[in-house]
Amino acid sequence: MRILVLGGDGFCGWPTSLHLADLGHEVVIVDNLSRRAIEHELEAYSLTPIAPLGTRLRVWHDLGGAPMRFERLDVAREYERLLALLERERPDAIVHFAEQRAAPYSMKSSRHKRYTVDNNLNATHNVLAAVVESGVDAHLAHLGTMGVYGYGTAGMKIPEGYLPVELVGEDGTRVRQEILYPANPGSIYHMTKTQDQLFFAYYAKNDGLRITDLHQGIVWGTNTPQTLRDERLINRFDYDGDYGTVLNRFLMQAAVGYPLTVHGSGGQTRAFIHIRDTVRCVQLALENPPERGERVRILNQMTETHRVRDLAEMVARSTGATVANVPNPRNEAAENDLEVANDLFIGLGLEPTTLDAGLLSEVTDVARRYAHRADLSKIPCTSTWTRRQAAGAPVGVEVSEPTPAPEPVRRTA
Amino acid sequence: MRILVLGGDGFCGWPTSLHLADLGHEVVIVDNLSRRAIEHELEAYSLTPIAPLGTRLRVWHDLGGAPMRFERLDVAREYERLLALLERERPDAIVHFAEQRAAPYSMKSSRHKRYTVDNNLNATHNVLAAVVESGVDAHLAHLGTMGVYGYGTAGMKIPEGYLPVELVGEDGTRVRQEILYPANPGSIYHMTKTQDQLFFAYYAKNDGLRITDLHQGIVWGTNTPQTLRDERLINRFDYDGDYGTVLNRFLMQAAVGYPLTVHGSGGQTRAFIHIRDTVRCVQLALENPPERGERVRILNQMTETHRVRDLAEMVARSTGATVANVPNPRNEAAENDLEVANDLFIGLGLEPTTLDAGLLSEVTDVARRYAHRADLSKIPCTSTWTRRQAAGAPVGVEVSEPTPAPEPVRRTA
Repeated sequence: MRILVLGGDGFCGWPTSLHLADLGHEVVIVDNLSRRAIEHELEAYSLTPIAPLGTRLRVWHDLGGAPMRFERLDVAREYERLLALLERERPDAIVHFAEQRAAPYSMKSSRHKRYTVDNNLNATHNVLAAVVESGVDAHLAHLGTMGVYGYGTAGMKIPEGYLPVELVGEDGTRVRQEILYPANPGSIYHMTKTQDQLFFAYYAKNDGLRITDLHQGIVWGTNTPQTLRDERLINRFDYDGDYGTVLNRFLMQAAVGYPLTVHGSGGQTRAFIHIRDTVRCVQLALENPPERGERVRILNQMTETHRVRDLAEMVARSTGATVANVPNPRNEAAENDLEVANDLFIGLGLEPTTLDAGLLSEVTDVARRYAHRADLSKIPCTSTWTRRQAAGAPVGVEVSEPTPAPEPVRRTA
Repeated sequence: MRILVLGGDGFCGWPTSLHLADLGHEVVIVDNLSRRAIEHELEAYSLTPIAPLGTRLRVWHDLGGAPMRFERLDVAREYERLLALLERERPDAIVHFAEQRAAPYSMKSSRHKRYTVDNNLNATHNVLAAVVESGVDAHLAHLGTMGVYGYGTAGMKIPEGYLPVELVGEDGTRVRQEILYPANPGSIYHMTKTQDQLFFAYYAKNDGLRITDLHQGIVWGTNTPQTLRDERLINRFDYDGDYGTVLNRFLMQAAVGYPLTVHGSGGQTRAFIHIRDTVRCVQLALENPPERGERVRILNQMTETHRVRDLAEMVARSTGATVANVPNPRNEAAENDLEVANDLFIGLGLEPTTLDAGLLSEVTDVARRYAHRADLSKIPCTSTWTRRQAAGAPVGVEVSEPTPAPEPVRRTA
């Protein structure tokens, strides 16, 4: 297949591009390098030393990888160039990662809220409009989020995108119907993904586009077999309060001797997936596109759920790290349960990489190797969800200097 | 109250501004005059000769009306000016009409789709972000559309925004819940309004904003008591294939001797409201704001439903006009039923102006008075919803020259 990977320089996009190229697909990376620009804005850099994209591509080629091309292009801003690219390449599939993907970043200020909305919604809509205008019959696979479901529904397993309901009329009439799971986003970022769903539903209905929406859990891990082939292929590792994700943050914090930053009581239950499974899931989704005229195919791209404080305790137990309960910057339930269906990917052959699969220590090893690059002042999450929180005490832990590195993380049972 | 009317120069915005000013409110009109710019793009002008906004405001003042101010501002593009305006005026309420509001215009081309998405979503989000950033405790009343509901649900009355459902779990668990009515928009324009709903739900939940969303039916009529006070206060009257709405179009077509353009079989059932009721509904909504912390208040702003072909037959019967069934440019069900709840506005005291209230002839009178301004070539709807339709025969009726004006429309029983 010829595949465009929009956002192919990012945390999920880069290993996905490599994985697809390794499978023999012809990959064109499309990216505006916005994630690298945001590093400079936040003065918070990947813990791992990520090479420039040109170096990444050259090294991959030098190591015998199928050559990948790169088009520097802002999907949200340069519609005409995007359209010309589609008309020229006529891809079989488009993988769409080209959105601002951090909830805390989306809540930092009005400007960040507005950037996230403007960028994410226009990016998604431009892709859809360009597919229709070009007449290219490309399958679009989009990275959604488990966050569209909110905290789920008391005692009910979250299905894959669609929910069977009985509508109850005023007169007691009941109609059975499958509806898009009622959206309940927890941040501006998550909100844009719920709005993306409405774009997809409309374009699938009106124009018969073939679309897959992958509602992904929180990604952990760093490397895939391809990014491990050379240090210059290494994937990014975010540990800062905006872009770092919870389990990677805990493992990094343990590695550098920083107390584990549990927000509130840590009672939040979240869905997780390892980056190695992310790339496999995208592969499986591309190999199993919906039919033309079919509704949007929605898959839950996650392999397990965990309560945040349980993760912190697990990491603390195996590393000797301490746990620090810091004020929760988010506006969310203190405690929630979460049970999620992922039968579709299991049915397609996904073999989940779970937390007990020995990869926790790999993350800590990576964090320890690059600990000298860490800026601990970037660890606290300084974004707040509401004006009330913003007016309160500063969020985060005061740490004067790094404590000595603890023992290595051991494989957990 | 001090009220900002965003989009206060438009078809609904102008009479609403006058009505609110007439009630003694302090009105500030905010508009980028985009509707007037689109007239030039389409070379399709209001049948009625609308005065420049400066003239409108001067005449209103000269006639003894409470002075209204005007701020020329692009809500979707000039966030900083919008924020400064909110901080300066500290309004009690904001009425938000500042969106591209024609479904056919939103489907004309990729550019029109993209303009509608970019303009409407950024406009709505900018207003919300500015209310939060300014800390102004303003009630936001937004003009939504009945189109968020799609064609409704077989045999079930459409409720006001929220739908009681029973969720059915995999294991048979049932949970009763009220959800936002599942969106099923019929055009890019309507889609943006379903996405607006998600903005509102989020900002009401996260920031406690007080928001009312008015899901309006198709507006008919032209004038209100205020716009009738002087010809230079006259409201706009759109009859073209993009911006004209169905009943006004039929009445205008009858007045100028053009066959009534029924799309397809005319089996579509739609909700309607007279412009006089639009302005009263906005007043009632502003007088009854939700509490802080309350969910978004959603009201159906419509007074009756009619099947399109019944309207055409009614107009034909009373005027002698002929009916022409032209290909339907829309991608929609050929026939649908529609029953809609509007108990909330009735409960607030709305006395509906229905089709049998003698105002049909007023519309035809207006159309006949300005028939010399009509460009009949602008009547057909040339937008098409899909590439398949676009590739087909041209849409619309060929008319070589206007036929003589028919008899006046009589009051219908």
